[in-house]
Amino acid sequence: MTTTAPAATPTDERAAQQRLRVVGTPQRKVDAVDKVTGRTQFADDISLPRMLHAKLLRSTRPHARIVDIDTSRAETLDGVKAVLTGRKLPIPFGILPVSQDEHALAPDVARFIGDPVAAVAATTEEIATAALDLIDVHYEELPAITSVEQAVATPEPRIHDYGPEGNLHKLIDLEFGDVEQGFAEADLVREDLFFYEGSTHLPMEQHAAVADWSGDKLTLWSSTQTPHYVHRALAKVLELPPSRVRVIACPNGGGFGGKSDPFNHEIAVAKLSMMTGRPVKIALTREEVFYCHRGRHPTLMWVKTGVTRAGAVKGMHFKTLLDGGAYGSYGVASTYYTGALQTVTYHVERYKFQGARAFTNKAPCGPKRGHGTPQPRCALEVHVDKLAEELGIDPAELRLRHLVPPDSVTANYLRVGSMGLGACIRKATEGAGWADKFRKLPYGKGVGLACSSYISGAGLPIYWNNMPHTGVQLKCDRGGGVTVFCGSTDIGQGSDSILAYIVAEVLGVEVGDIQVVTADTDLTPVDLGSYSSRVTLMSGNAALQAAERAREILSQHASQKLDVPETRLAFAENRVFNVEEPECGMSFAEAVQLAEAAEGTVGTVGSYTPPRSPGRYRGAGVGPSPAYSYSAAIAEVEVHPDSGIVQVPRIWIAHDVGQCINPVTVIGQVEGGVYMGLGEALMEEMTYREKRDLVHKIPSMLEYKSPTTLEMCDVVTYLIEDPDPSGPFGAKEVGQGPLLPVAPAIANAVYDAVGVRVDEVPITPEKVLKAMRRKAKGEEPRYGPGTFPEINWPAPTRVPPPWEGGDGKATEETPRGFPEERQH
Amino acid sequence: MTTTAPAATPTDERAAQQRLRVVGTPQRKVDAVDKVTGRTQFADDISLPRMLHAKLLRSTRPHARIVDIDTSRAETLDGVKAVLTGRKLPIPFGILPVSQDEHALAPDVARFIGDPVAAVAATTEEIATAALDLIDVHYEELPAITSVEQAVATPEPRIHDYGPEGNLHKLIDLEFGDVEQGFAEADLVREDLFFYEGSTHLPMEQHAAVADWSGDKLTLWSSTQTPHYVHRALAKVLELPPSRVRVIACPNGGGFGGKSDPFNHEIAVAKLSMMTGRPVKIALTREEVFYCHRGRHPTLMWVKTGVTRAGAVKGMHFKTLLDGGAYGSYGVASTYYTGALQTVTYHVERYKFQGARAFTNKAPCGPKRGHGTPQPRCALEVHVDKLAEELGIDPAELRLRHLVPPDSVTANYLRVGSMGLGACIRKATEGAGWADKFRKLPYGKGVGLACSSYISGAGLPIYWNNMPHTGVQLKCDRGGGVTVFCGSTDIGQGSDSILAYIVAEVLGVEVGDIQVVTADTDLTPVDLGSYSSRVTLMSGNAALQAAERAREILSQHASQKLDVPETRLAFAENRVFNVEEPECGMSFAEAVQLAEAAEGTVGTVGSYTPPRSPGRYRGAGVGPSPAYSYSAAIAEVEVHPDSGIVQVPRIWIAHDVGQCINPVTVIGQVEGGVYMGLGEALMEEMTYREKRDLVHKIPSMLEYKSPTTLEMCDVVTYLIEDPDPSGPFGAKEVGQGPLLPVAPAIANAVYDAVGVRVDEVPITPEKVLKAMRRKAKGEEPRYGPGTFPEINWPAPTRVPPPWEGGDGKATEETPRGFPEERQH
Repeated sequence: MTTTAPAATPTDERAAQQRLRVVGTPQRKVDAVDKVTGRTQFADDISLPRMLHAKLLRSTRPHARIVDIDTSRAETLDGVKAVLTGRKLPIPFGILPVSQDEHALAPDVARFIGDPVAAVAATTEEIATAALDLIDVHYEELPAITSVEQAVATPEPRIHDYGPEGNLHKLIDLEFGDVEQGFAEADLVREDLFFYEGSTHLPMEQHAAVADWSGDKLTLWSSTQTPHYVHRALAKVLELPPSRVRVIACPNGGGFGGKSDPFNHEIAVAKLSMMTGRPVKIALTREEVFYCHRGRHPTLMWVKTGVTRAGAVKGMHFKTLLDGGAYGSYGVASTYYTGALQTVTYHVERYKFQGARAFTNKAPCGPKRGHGTPQPRCALEVHVDKLAEELGIDPAELRLRHLVPPDSVTANYLRVGSMGLGACIRKATEGAGWADKFRKLPYGKGVGLACSSYISGAGLPIYWNNMPHTGVQLKCDRGGGVTVFCGSTDIGQGSDSILAYIVAEVLGVEVGDIQVVTADTDLTPVDLGSYSSRVTLMSGNAALQAAERAREILSQHASQKLDVPETRLAFAENRVFNVEEPECGMSFAEAVQLAEAAEGTVGTVGSYTPPRSPGRYRGAGVGPSPAYSYSAAIAEVEVHPDSGIVQVPRIWIAHDVGQCINPVTVIGQVEGGVYMGLGEALMEEMTYREKRDLVHKIPSMLEYKSPTTLEMCDVVTYLIEDPDPSGPFGAKEVGQGPLLPVAPAIANAVYDAVGVRVDEVPITPEKVLKAMRRKAKGEEPRYGPGTFPEINWPAPTRVPPPWEGGDGKATEETPRGFPEERQH
Repeated sequence: MTTTAPAATPTDERAAQQRLRVVGTPQRKVDAVDKVTGRTQFADDISLPRMLHAKLLRSTRPHARIVDIDTSRAETLDGVKAVLTGRKLPIPFGILPVSQDEHALAPDVARFIGDPVAAVAATTEEIATAALDLIDVHYEELPAITSVEQAVATPEPRIHDYGPEGNLHKLIDLEFGDVEQGFAEADLVREDLFFYEGSTHLPMEQHAAVADWSGDKLTLWSSTQTPHYVHRALAKVLELPPSRVRVIACPNGGGFGGKSDPFNHEIAVAKLSMMTGRPVKIALTREEVFYCHRGRHPTLMWVKTGVTRAGAVKGMHFKTLLDGGAYGSYGVASTYYTGALQTVTYHVERYKFQGARAFTNKAPCGPKRGHGTPQPRCALEVHVDKLAEELGIDPAELRLRHLVPPDSVTANYLRVGSMGLGACIRKATEGAGWADKFRKLPYGKGVGLACSSYISGAGLPIYWNNMPHTGVQLKCDRGGGVTVFCGSTDIGQGSDSILAYIVAEVLGVEVGDIQVVTADTDLTPVDLGSYSSRVTLMSGNAALQAAERAREILSQHASQKLDVPETRLAFAENRVFNVEEPECGMSFAEAVQLAEAAEGTVGTVGSYTPPRSPGRYRGAGVGPSPAYSYSAAIAEVEVHPDSGIVQVPRIWIAHDVGQCINPVTVIGQVEGGVYMGLGEALMEEMTYREKRDLVHKIPSMLEYKSPTTLEMCDVVTYLIEDPDPSGPFGAKEVGQGPLLPVAPAIANAVYDAVGVRVDEVPITPEKVLKAMRRKAKGEEPRYGPGTFPEINWPAPTRVPPPWEGGDGKATEETPRGFPEERQH
């Protein structure tokens, strides 16, 4: 039911211009046949001799001290080989150095319903499940924090004993220029409040892992997006040298950020394997996946913007409050992200961002497609729609007027390279017939526009010594094959294929001649994982470098043999030849053989470290990226006045991808983003019985509402190609960005259709109806949150923007809030 | 029951001297735990979803034209998914370019009982077996060649239509100096005839393979010693680009040369997988393994030597006739090997070698531990024993007098580097108490001495463009682990471990920090395989080079950081430090992190190409090696006069290994060689009902006599360490050489015990009794062959030895015998 614009056409033209053979052309994914024929081995498909099966006993209390766990009855059950409790694994782990707050199994306090407290390994899954019932946990209940508002208001009991105070996990206060001055200079100042509900990733594949301890080495296969982080967590908690831990990320049946954390079940099965000397598998149930979560943070947002009559933003103040659930996860980064990217679309002269994340006794939140940015983006784009209306300027026109220029630095010191948002807006409005529809459709129908931007990998410097974010090792075989080793993880998005296309392009061989080996900490150079839309740009650049180095070696020897200068050699169709006299050449395999005879094995390396960001203030690490993608989406909606049901027949979306590596997979990512954005906009929500016991209300795919093919809209995709100098062949991100504008475009379209504002996502029929009833009663035609709680913000870190003579450093910086932040 | 001298002592001293931490010290094999706990996955342990099982229909006729094969009944059997006959795979394959004479399934002529003619893939092995009975083959019988004598005498019918003439596969005639002149100058000229029976490898693991065709790529797991050769054969026969074929050699449960050929079952399952789109496994029965064979050639040998009164060899003429069985295999090389290494132990002034290999309608012969050299070595060492007796010189003394000097070139242009045979003889005679025992033990007891030498990999140049014989790619991980990728194959001898030890030594990490990835044509650089005792020297040198290059990179950055000159940095105990001030240093992992930050992924390559041999004549390619190992063995026997049974209580063996990499595995190899030599000396034989139907007489482990622990002798091993400049840390071969002196030492000891010569191996009780009865009757006290058949030798290739002004080139060279030799 999905249509797409003939995106291949401009891509093909570019390919012809640049003489690209592979890049920019439609290509089959390297794992396509295995996927469609069922040959792909996911983690749960692994079966090893003598393998045991593990189950986790999960807390039935939202917040409780574990007084005692009696595992004796479980241990005597026939077929049970090991029972594990948290006291045997006292070392905490976590994804960020500042948030090492998890345990494989809660050793003393359970912090949410679903928090694992014990694990069993048995000869069958059934026996392991039965054994869970025989474990007696003596809990001492603690008061539970049910909501973010309660977390802010209730300092005791603390869910964790770190963080700035009470149940706050992180507080951020950054001010780039004097926003009050900005408001003073503005012609119009407007404030808005928004709420964006939490939602979960819902990958088709449930998490699974298999651990195998050989006696001196641990191997873990897992459905993870981040084998390197899992590797670190295992080494830390199990107290093993990193060289004795091998993590292999299996092909993932979807991740969407939900497999980015090292998980307690991964560590528990590793320990159980070490205890039993046998391989141990765990496969989570769908219900458990809902409790593992790490998805979208429910986020309350307040925005105040001062604009000139023409719409220029003189000052913007943005506040967010994130419900983090029970653990840290990537939450500190998530919190920064709710503020960081508000400046890369429209020029913001002065910007103040205050972000807070609070702990509650619910499943922990973390990164989900768009990580921390869909919520503020939604708020901002609806806010801009409202500003445009107040200013009497067409919202497309307003945006176009104030775009961040390419090759510039924002108020918060993000370096923007290529910037295709203008082209996106023009393409989307033209395609959708915006001018003929906006404010012109009959009652009940409407269109809405929203824009967005996303990172192509995080540009932060990591660990000491400027660690490369990714590496590639490459081998050319004398038979004509090429093997590419990279730590990156294919979670279904096709990143393995991207590496193959890039190497095939550079070396002139067929994609099928490339063997891609990824996501194995023993076999592949380090890579941070599959998140932040980083793989194409970062691992792609590393692959490009390794391939170019190999090409250089081969060129030298082919050049000598053919007596053709290296600069005139072409690599294409599995041959190396004189570009001006194609018959003068040799096969690629022969070129490898020549080089191998002269120099030995033809193997090269490549790697990628992002450029240093110009921001030098604390917190400047989250937001910078080598390149930003841009999107503009227009949603067409039909709102049923009686039921409040919002239907979305079609979305036009233009995405600035820099350079398409493979239009088929790029369009797939755009459509996938729209699909997920549609779900968040209209129906998805992680909800708990907050008033009672904090049990998840809808922990199954039957109950959790997500669009089916019947609800899915038509998608018209336009790919804008404005190659970014940072990307391989100019490529930028596509996997997350296109989700962002969907919800605000729909929200703005609902207003266009029926004249009510639903400032809360998801836009359910009930909320629409409530807003419409208010409108009918003459009240404010709006559904949304009413207040932003009082928070004891720290003194702001003040950083003058570049145009005020700033050099990226803070003039005033608040001291670090808690010692953990320094320690790691 | 086996004792060993405390070989670790001199090794430990050397290690201390050179400050070697790993090399030379006893180390656990890297696969030890997996092997003893049963975790190792052999080829037959592989099970893939939807996997089919294959069986081969083997010819029941020794020589027959296949008129027709009707597979229709088999095809309709429930569960049968494919039936394959030879006409679908018309392209021949073979291991040597000159002997591409095999087919996956015989398309027109079956050449021995056991030759595969059809293959079935079915859902179970039982169904596949049942289907074989439903295949109707219409044979037209051809006269069978039953013996090598018949092959020489019977030009028609030809088993193959190539080769110099009739049923001769290969004829070699090389003369290095005028041997007749040598005989004229000699004080004593002696002729002898010997026969060495064929024997088979008898690895514990039967051959197995699994093929998996994905739609555009073939993966084959196999119990092979030579994944690279299998890769080439598959690509050739299946007409696939080499880049679309991946061969993975599984851990081998013993090879001994028996898994060095690409096998028809490997190609058949590959084709069956392509036909069915499903994985297909084949596991040969033990009986089939006997028919697959490729073992020791039954070899008839004639030797004539002229010596001075002091024992100096003025001239030697050596003739061999090999029963090749039905196919070429490595047979051309085997034939060359029966003559090539006769010159590297004792100085031979003039040397003439005539070698012939004939086809017969029996299971094909090929390389078995010692490949073509145990037979001539046995003949030579017994011959020398006889010469010594005639000259009245102690056989140890005679040998010591005429050793080839180190750093010299032999008559046939083999370059000898280190030469520890003198030390071996002295150590063995001293240990065994030779002077007190030889010719002094009571009747029925005796001692015998024999010596030998073997190659450390073949030094021949291969393919065009001087292909490296092996390559290594290496990766240093920031966690402190190191991964080594090499195409070499561990067949149980521990070569993976050797690579790990070498890299651990150079980089100063623990062996357990090294991950070794081998024998996968996609993941690893090319390597010729596990044969010719080549892996330690060749792959070891490649690993050494790659590790040294990595160390160089790490040194640069550690040196800068520590402010210590690179030359003063030590790598040990997972640290890099100032050798004069050990506390000034950093962890190995930190050094990797430093280098990685500065240069990106730390990955290096190494490779090895043997030096060019000084021989330039045709045939000079077989015999050269970068280094020769040496052995001296003394056997003590008890011959029971009534039964003729020979018992061997003990063998003292000294082996010049250059440098022990791991004394535990080196001693294991020595003992294994002695074990196998003992079996060949006393009992093993591949025998056929030659007078009737050429069925194998003893195709099972119940019937094939091989020593059990009860027959196994005590072995006293002395390791002589005389580092060879060509080997990694000076290491030379050990896997094959120690087998060679065992049979002749026993034969010589039998003579010492009871005064009869059994010039035929195995020395069975019947043969001893026959010789003893002859002696009792006053006849020649000998059992052995009587004549060497007349062969129409080609005109000799004449190459003057170096001391006659030769430059390695032939002055007269016979034209090539058949066009195939030129083609490939």
